[in-house]
Amino acid sequence: MFHVEHERNMFPEYDIIVVGAGHAGCEAAAAAANLGSKVLLVTMNMQTIAQMSCNPAMGGVAKGQIVREIDAMGGYSGIVSDKTTIQFRMLNQSKGPAMWSPRSQNDRYKFHEEWRNMLEQTPNIDFFQDMVSSLLVKGNTVYGVKTSLGLEIKSKAVVLTNGTFLNGTIHIGEKRFGGGRMGEKGATGLTEHLVELGLESGRMKTGTPPRIDGRSINYSVMEEQQGEENAGRFSYLDFPLPTEKRSCYITYTSPEVHDILKEGFDRSPMFTGRIKGLGPRYCPSIEDKINRFAERDRHQLFVEPEGWNTVEVYVNGFSTSLPEDVQYKALTKVPGFENAKFFRPGYAIEYDFFPPTQLHTTLETKKISNLFFAGQINGTTGYEEAAAQGFLAGINAHQKINDKHEVILKRSEAYIGVLIDDLVTKGTEEPYRMFTSRAEHRLLLRQDNADIRLTKLSHDIGLASPERLEKVNEKISKSDEIVKFMKSKSVEPGEINAFLQEKGTSTIPQNTKLFNLLSRPQIDLVDLVEAYQPLKEFINGNKKEIIEQAEIKVKYETYFEKELEMVSKLHKMEDQGINPEFNYDTLVSLSKESREKLKKVKPRTLGQASRISGVSPADISVLMIHLSK
Amino acid sequence: MFHVEHERNMFPEYDIIVVGAGHAGCEAAAAAANLGSKVLLVTMNMQTIAQMSCNPAMGGVAKGQIVREIDAMGGYSGIVSDKTTIQFRMLNQSKGPAMWSPRSQNDRYKFHEEWRNMLEQTPNIDFFQDMVSSLLVKGNTVYGVKTSLGLEIKSKAVVLTNGTFLNGTIHIGEKRFGGGRMGEKGATGLTEHLVELGLESGRMKTGTPPRIDGRSINYSVMEEQQGEENAGRFSYLDFPLPTEKRSCYITYTSPEVHDILKEGFDRSPMFTGRIKGLGPRYCPSIEDKINRFAERDRHQLFVEPEGWNTVEVYVNGFSTSLPEDVQYKALTKVPGFENAKFFRPGYAIEYDFFPPTQLHTTLETKKISNLFFAGQINGTTGYEEAAAQGFLAGINAHQKINDKHEVILKRSEAYIGVLIDDLVTKGTEEPYRMFTSRAEHRLLLRQDNADIRLTKLSHDIGLASPERLEKVNEKISKSDEIVKFMKSKSVEPGEINAFLQEKGTSTIPQNTKLFNLLSRPQIDLVDLVEAYQPLKEFINGNKKEIIEQAEIKVKYETYFEKELEMVSKLHKMEDQGINPEFNYDTLVSLSKESREKLKKVKPRTLGQASRISGVSPADISVLMIHLSK
Ligand SMILES: Cc1cc2nc3c(=O)[nH]c(=O)nc-3n(C[C@H](O)[C@H](O)[C@H](O)COP(=O)(O)OP(=O)(O)OC[C@H]3O[C@@H](n4cnc5c(N)ncnc54)[C@H](O)[C@@H]3O)c2cc1C
Ligand SMILES: Cc1cc2nc3c(=O)[nH]c(=O)nc-3n(C[C@H](O)[C@H](O)[C@H](O)COP(=O)(O)OP(=O)(O)OC[C@H]3O[C@@H](n4cnc5c(N)ncnc54)[C@H](O)[C@@H]3O)c2cc1C
Repeated sequence: MFHVEHERNMFPEYDIIVVGAGHAGCEAAAAAANLGSKVLLVTMNMQTIAQMSCNPAMGGVAKGQIVREIDAMGGYSGIVSDKTTIQFRMLNQSKGPAMWSPRSQNDRYKFHEEWRNMLEQTPNIDFFQDMVSSLLVKGNTVYGVKTSLGLEIKSKAVVLTNGTFLNGTIHIGEKRFGGGRMGEKGATGLTEHLVELGLESGRMKTGTPPRIDGRSINYSVMEEQQGEENAGRFSYLDFPLPTEKRSCYITYTSPEVHDILKEGFDRSPMFTGRIKGLGPRYCPSIEDKINRFAERDRHQLFVEPEGWNTVEVYVNGFSTSLPEDVQYKALTKVPGFENAKFFRPGYAIEYDFFPPTQLHTTLETKKISNLFFAGQINGTTGYEEAAAQGFLAGINAHQKINDKHEVILKRSEAYIGVLIDDLVTKGTEEPYRMFTSRAEHRLLLRQDNADIRLTKLSHDIGLASPERLEKVNEKISKSDEIVKFMKSKSVEPGEINAFLQEKGTSTIPQNTKLFNLLSRPQIDLVDLVEAYQPLKEFINGNKKEIIEQAEIKVKYETYFEKELEMVSKLHKMEDQGINPEFNYDTLVSLSKESREKLKKVKPRTLGQASRISGVSPADISVLMIHLSK
Repeated sequence: MFHVEHERNMFPEYDIIVVGAGHAGCEAAAAAANLGSKVLLVTMNMQTIAQMSCNPAMGGVAKGQIVREIDAMGGYSGIVSDKTTIQFRMLNQSKGPAMWSPRSQNDRYKFHEEWRNMLEQTPNIDFFQDMVSSLLVKGNTVYGVKTSLGLEIKSKAVVLTNGTFLNGTIHIGEKRFGGGRMGEKGATGLTEHLVELGLESGRMKTGTPPRIDGRSINYSVMEEQQGEENAGRFSYLDFPLPTEKRSCYITYTSPEVHDILKEGFDRSPMFTGRIKGLGPRYCPSIEDKINRFAERDRHQLFVEPEGWNTVEVYVNGFSTSLPEDVQYKALTKVPGFENAKFFRPGYAIEYDFFPPTQLHTTLETKKISNLFFAGQINGTTGYEEAAAQGFLAGINAHQKINDKHEVILKRSEAYIGVLIDDLVTKGTEEPYRMFTSRAEHRLLLRQDNADIRLTKLSHDIGLASPERLEKVNEKISKSDEIVKFMKSKSVEPGEINAFLQEKGTSTIPQNTKLFNLLSRPQIDLVDLVEAYQPLKEFINGNKKEIIEQAEIKVKYETYFEKELEMVSKLHKMEDQGINPEFNYDTLVSLSKESREKLKKVKPRTLGQASRISGVSPADISVLMIHLSK
């Protein structure tokens, strides 16, 4: 009696409990709280909030777009990254704008600190440091969590974001021990509990390189890679960025290094079969790389500082779980690392995940109502992928308990849409990572227009601030005005031919629209503005991103329009709804395999159904005919 | 073969390995490295270097003096504290200068960050993240450590500073689980190994209060306690101090709070006998306080911010291991905490320690050569006590392996001397904490003169920098000059009587020395300077601490001289050396108890022998007579 009475008092009933304060959990908590839910963030250690477990960097190809999308919708990852950036680069600038990808190196400590700070400043979030060991479930609905201290805390919904912690096992060579990250405890009990509740779990693995004492590295034999000035930022908001930069360095492995590594293969947990879980194919360990790409006699290593002040260095590309003596012997044959001192060896970690086909597109589990899963627990890898899922899970948990509509981003609308649709529809056998190639409409899903794509949608549900909406509206209208001006304004040959000649493009015989000139690949807007005074006067005073947007619109308009047309055709089909409880047994002409898959995945639209692996186009036709009846 | 060959390569042979990067380990590493030893600091988690496990504050009565002493000798604790101070106060300023005690509130996070930063900037320190599980010992000499990864790392000496981690067990009410601090793993295996090596271990406990969400506190009903402007600093060096301050707040428990807490006593691990180890009597838990001081109907609580930005708050005075529901119910009856939200409950931790009578005064173990113990592992409590021991252990480890003389601070020279002498001579049954009352010569051991007492000594062994020595020499000579001036310069009645009258002290009938005027309790130097122009001119341009030092010398000279005289008498006896291998069995007239104690402690001086509890003055006389033969 006594017990129960006070425990009820210690915590109010929350709207949403988020379990785990990694990248997924932090975004989930922030999104739900900013929508108005009372949120409790329970995490095992408040000193590791939003810890970067592996490399101290955010973004990169496809991932950078995701961070921009989260930011456009009012998430925190972009802001935190920007405020703790020690180097920023826009990758792929020589390619088309769909490939431009922002990437930052971050101060690992400050990244955590800034996240914690922002969460603490978010009014609706409470914190509790403890391990969640089971859920409170009645019928098929979750109503809270139970912690390792035995506390029962109630809520209307729960978001699980346990990352690599569920039954985490760390491997280095033949050594193996429990842990969620090096030096941290793993989380026990929860997997077993979820399995008892009827969920299916699997096992995956990932790895991380050794950390090196920067004072022991000879940078003079490496290639320096500086950050770019004015390369941009993740966030669409304006706030001052840190000005102090740090360089990265590039060096290479060699046949000698590979030979040494191979000596350790008989003691590698990956090759001896000790590690059962599948690792990320696209973020392979160095032993994986020399095994799979035997023909390559060197691999690139990026030597990345962990922060503004620390001497700790991250050796990107040298992820390994070989015995530490082999790691050491091999790394010291890499130019610049001859005298390397280890802060700690690389290691691999195996952990439980839950195949994400068990989820609705809202990231709610199909088995247990109001229970959401986000992040690495869904079989993904990467901070950005985790953050994106957490963000959407937080939104949808809020929407669900308030009887509001689901928020599902389309594949043509956001990488986040692609990510979640892939996960819940196709599932994943190996750690899922985002690539531009996964997005069939990647031409539309650019880093420059994430705000145009998503801010309004988020503002409409009450998340993105009016300030954000105003900014994006201004960007749209002003860039449109510039495009309009360029479409209407003609230039006379005499005014421009000298410039065209200088740029190595053909001169014009008669008056020509500015728009047509800018469409030429040789011409860019910055130069054109300088060459043609009326354009300069018109554009003057507009922000950099507005001018850039106008230029992208002009240069790629035809491509975009074609893509949009295709999308709209697809959408007609895509959007065709299917009742998730639809009884596929009534459609006798479906193949057996398709029927089983459809019953398992319970797609909500025809488009989703069409992407289930094993569901054939013929079966989609069957479904389509049925639905149009 | 293969294995051994590479492991030898991965680490050079170090001079000194320090195990554990708490306050003791950090100072040990810094001191040894700055003396020129090649040091490896092995610690379980590099993200918790110098973590403040309990309250985010340094110094206080007697402890503040210790920090000043460490700083005077070139340790880092004072500098780190100063750079991360969110509030500084000089306690006891209404009392004599021997009681003045500097105390800072610190940003817990920045404190760690600054320590790590300073260590990384110290050239001779390498780092490795791993758990030490045993020692490498040959004969009776240690020659390295073995880690949980199975690595053997060699060194000439080892300093163990394991803090509360050895077989740490955390208690909250009836719950109990392993851990070195909340959310961190404990260290296993090492105690058992040390016991096998012939060392004796014991069990102690300590506790910590709940952490509260500052946003849930109503500060308006509490008493605000601001930091003082220009209250001073720990470090004798000049560097800019942070300017942004934070206030603390004071509130009180009540009979109602006590009654609620008492309801939980039957589930308290302290009262049910689950906790076997003895806790710190002078830093008691709240349940201890209401139990032992049943007559008091309230206890003061200090509500302390954990940093500049975080909302986390530390409830100083409310340390408890009662069940969390009882903690909650009781705390919410404390004014201002009505709506308190917990980040985590308070808890107690039990851990292994090694009775310090097993150590030489250098902190080397008597059983194993070149093995040193420092910090909480020796049965102490408190960051300052730990740091001080670590500092001296680091120094003496360096001295030992370089065949240099032992560095032992006298009881009349430093609180650190008192601390270590107490520990190795008397041992301790409960967590040992420093008090001014433990120092018989506390009149001499002041915070204002730690540099005068210790900087030269440290400079002589090559530790304190020339810059420090210059500063203290300037302080000594300039303050002496001022004293000399005041002793020589007479004032005429007409020049000063108005001032004396104003200050409420008798006027002078004839010319009187400035020195005599300042000796009067009603007069202080700041006022006197304003009242008497020649003094002002003479003093002008001197630094604050020089003027202060001169004033203290003038006002307390007679006391100090008497004390010094006594010390010198005592030293004659004190310094009388005893061969630690002296065979006490040859002195037949010793009492049996004394003989046993002396054989166990192996005192190195007559003074030390005299302070062994159980060794009577009569027996000391026997020894004295023998020694003077
Ligand atoms: C060794 C290692 C190597 C990696 N390598 C790569 C890589 O090469 N490339 C890449 O893209 N990604 C890599 N990652 C993955 C990347 O770190 C994750 O994808 C990302 O951090 C996942 O975010 P998350 O929020 O899902 O989980 P995490 O960041 O793991 O956070 C989980 C959080 O939940 C808490 N928690 C867990 N269980 C409980 C519980 N029961 N109760 C309370 N709190 C709990 C934890 O304390 C933690 O705060 C690696 C991770 C590790 C550990
Ligand atoms: C819950 C709690 C409450 C406390 N309450 C008070 C109080 O009220 N008043 C007070 O004055 N003091 C209190 N203290 C004590 C204070 O924290 C310690 O006195 C001080 O931190 C001791 O410093 P240390 O350097 O000896 O050890 P610690 O600060 O404990 O540091 C030990 C370090 O060693 C590392 N380590 C341990 N074992 C190994 C190993 N085998 N291999 C590698 N690394 C290892 C740990 O990771 C850690 O970094 C409390 C401590 C705790 C945990």
